[in-house]
Amino acid sequence: MSNQTEQGYFTEENSAEVVVSRNANASDARLAELMEAITRHLHAAVKEVEPTQEEWFKAIMFLTETGHKCDDWRQEFILLSDVLGVSMLVDAINNRKPSGASESTVLGPFHVPDAPERPMGADICLDGKGDRMLVKGRILDTDGNPIAGARIDVWQTNDDGFYDVQQKGIQPDFNFRGVFRTGADGVYWFWGAKPKSYPIPDDGPVGKMLAALGRHPYRPAHLHYIIEAEGFETLVTHIFDPRDEYIHSDAVFGVKQSLMAEFELVEDKARIEAKGAQAPFFEVKHDFVLAGTS
Amino acid sequence: MSNQTEQGYFTEENSAEVVVSRNANASDARLAELMEAITRHLHAAVKEVEPTQEEWFKAIMFLTETGHKCDDWRQEFILLSDVLGVSMLVDAINNRKPSGASESTVLGPFHVPDAPERPMGADICLDGKGDRMLVKGRILDTDGNPIAGARIDVWQTNDDGFYDVQQKGIQPDFNFRGVFRTGADGVYWFWGAKPKSYPIPDDGPVGKMLAALGRHPYRPAHLHYIIEAEGFETLVTHIFDPRDEYIHSDAVFGVKQSLMAEFELVEDKARIEAKGAQAPFFEVKHDFVLAGTS
Repeated sequence: MSNQTEQGYFTEENSAEVVVSRNANASDARLAELMEAITRHLHAAVKEVEPTQEEWFKAIMFLTETGHKCDDWRQEFILLSDVLGVSMLVDAINNRKPSGASESTVLGPFHVPDAPERPMGADICLDGKGDRMLVKGRILDTDGNPIAGARIDVWQTNDDGFYDVQQKGIQPDFNFRGVFRTGADGVYWFWGAKPKSYPIPDDGPVGKMLAALGRHPYRPAHLHYIIEAEGFETLVTHIFDPRDEYIHSDAVFGVKQSLMAEFELVEDKARIEAKGAQAPFFEVKHDFVLAGTS
Repeated sequence: MSNQTEQGYFTEENSAEVVVSRNANASDARLAELMEAITRHLHAAVKEVEPTQEEWFKAIMFLTETGHKCDDWRQEFILLSDVLGVSMLVDAINNRKPSGASESTVLGPFHVPDAPERPMGADICLDGKGDRMLVKGRILDTDGNPIAGARIDVWQTNDDGFYDVQQKGIQPDFNFRGVFRTGADGVYWFWGAKPKSYPIPDDGPVGKMLAALGRHPYRPAHLHYIIEAEGFETLVTHIFDPRDEYIHSDAVFGVKQSLMAEFELVEDKARIEAKGAQAPFFEVKHDFVLAGTS
């Protein structure tokens, strides 16, 4: 046994060390660093669970099917990363915010880069469906000062729980999407309809895995935001409805306590009239705080 | 922060625990056990290397391309498992042998189940190419007794470093393949030609990864064996030429010290004649010791 180790042959005991030692001449030092950590942790996991050959082959076939499910419209490996919490972990590592700044969460697959810029106060609900919702708040720096000229890119599902890009030809183009720009007071507001919870695509290998693990594929209702302003770090985040039935079990782990927004049902006639509305609506107030670029 | 943890929301600190806690209602307990270990080690690896979003996306695309490379004839995820030493580790875990028994190594992708049974002493070289080789030895139990009726399934490359199934229409069918059965003395012998080292398929994502890591794709020359006998554990293994230039750097980590065989060049006229040969040949002597089924 010691003889094998001396000559650098693979054994159950020294497996990871032997594999990593082969990367001594890597041209890409960062890749070698990544592969060393992946190799060590992968071998540790295998040694811990001691898979049978059949289990190992099932894992190979799962990865193969996950790859085969990927095309220009579907990214099953990102879904896998999402449901294992890896996407959120990478997001967290890359978006450690100073105290007081709004927290980030995952971008998700439904952003489009060319949503139309709309006048402040516009209605992004183009299909006329759902519970009316007024969203408002301020874009602030960490000292509480308003940020002028902040660009707010917002998108959400319609009342059926689908994004426009999932229902091309059914929903109007750019339904529930808009770009707004703050004035000197940092204030934003727009009209929409209350977003709905929805399942991530669960007709592939990842969905089957979730089912076998006793997990549902739903994300709690949320609005997506990208908020940019000169001199500040871009914020990619959501706000969530804390009363959503899936708020404690988001399939992709995107929920954070600080991203909860109050969806207040406004029934008072005077307040309804003051906003020029015809019927009760939900009012969502949420301020976003941007971290300065260092 | 403590508030988030109490409510079970995801944070950088508790990421793996939150993900694992979702599997509480898994219908498949073993899957939940496997996924817990995979999740914990995956999160530990991510926390250790702190990938950027760009690096994470590169990893997603690498897995996607690896999946897309897989078809009925090519299994790029098995290749990935092989070059990361995972296939050998799973083999080692599932084939811990009692003291004195021959060690196993990976099956590889080139076995075919229907190779012809040949009379003991047959020549498995059907293309007439390469350095003549006589392979012989005994099949024994761990007490040193011969095993009668052992089934020996052997396969190897031809002199060009390809298996017959890689060169259909170029090599004769079943070139360098044969099944032999031992008699009461447990002895086997057959003729072939010295196998050659060869690269694993390196025109896909795994090959590109090896190149970036400064690794070559070659396997040292070897003969493959599956040896079966009633009352004994089936042995899947290779024997290797210790003088091969890649013997210390097998791309798939299949080499073990105990699997070295001596490839002796026989030049003595009397010995050449005694074997009915016309010219010098390599003689390979190797006994295999099977573990009894418990």
